[in-house]
Amino acid sequence: MATIGQVLRVKGPDVIVASPGETVLAASKLMAEANVGSVIIKDGEAVKGIFTERDLLTRVIVVGKDPAAVTLAEMMSAPVRICRLDDNVHSVFNMMVSQHISHVAVVEGGALIGLVGLRDILSAELQEAADKLKEYEPDA
Amino acid sequence: MATIGQVLRVKGPDVIVASPGETVLAASKLMAEANVGSVIIKDGEAVKGIFTERDLLTRVIVVGKDPAAVTLAEMMSAPVRICRLDDNVHSVFNMMVSQHISHVAVVEGGALIGLVGLRDILSAELQEAADKLKEYEPDA
Repeated sequence: MATIGQVLRVKGPDVIVASPGETVLAASKLMAEANVGSVIIKDGEAVKGIFTERDLLTRVIVVGKDPAAVTLAEMMSAPVRICRLDDNVHSVFNMMVSQHISHVAVVEGGALIGLVGLRDILSAELQEAADKLKEYEPDA
Repeated sequence: MATIGQVLRVKGPDVIVASPGETVLAASKLMAEANVGSVIIKDGEAVKGIFTERDLLTRVIVVGKDPAAVTLAEMMSAPVRICRLDDNVHSVFNMMVSQHISHVAVVEGGALIGLVGLRDILSAELQEAADKLKEYEPDA
């Protein structure tokens, strides 16, 4: 059974991090530079929230707010759902689907280790299924 | 081998559509209402482009453009990659990965039938692998 730790090893541990007082515009620039769709908001070591492209769309742009005039603290989703390195991928996947969330923070000993998206999880599940099939069809 | 038609049947055929002259703000409202991350731009029956949350982030917000003052024609990605109902899921998946795209329009006889995202494809591939495993492990 694949774990979240294995998923993180495949995708790499990089997470974009910003502080609650930063503007949505500043965070958007970080996300665009890194070509990712979300940023984790930390206050010191504490994980405070997450801000995604969907939040930018629905909470800022559509309601006519100025991205340079609103902060992440005002616009982020909180709390962030978390999981641990040893959690198995299936249970985290089920949590994401049942709670309609697209990202889960990986936290160990109070420290943010990484961020796992639905796409990462699906890729891992797919790879696991493919590997299992190979056991049955060694020449496939 | 699963086809794109089967994927569409699972996810439903709904696509958000807008015309090239509409503003990014108008399209953003459509996307937010439908809770989707992309809109297809059509001029009459012709598919002209696609505009996604990532385009909103990187081409509009980060560069300081006003979503109410720019049109989809200016900000969309074009041309849209297309596929057909009979295409098999693996080949479309490989195309998306190799071309770094997240959405493919499904077109038949010149008409837009649907829109398939990477997430839909991965779900379908995963389901197929799970079904295949069941053939080997009927009691699992």
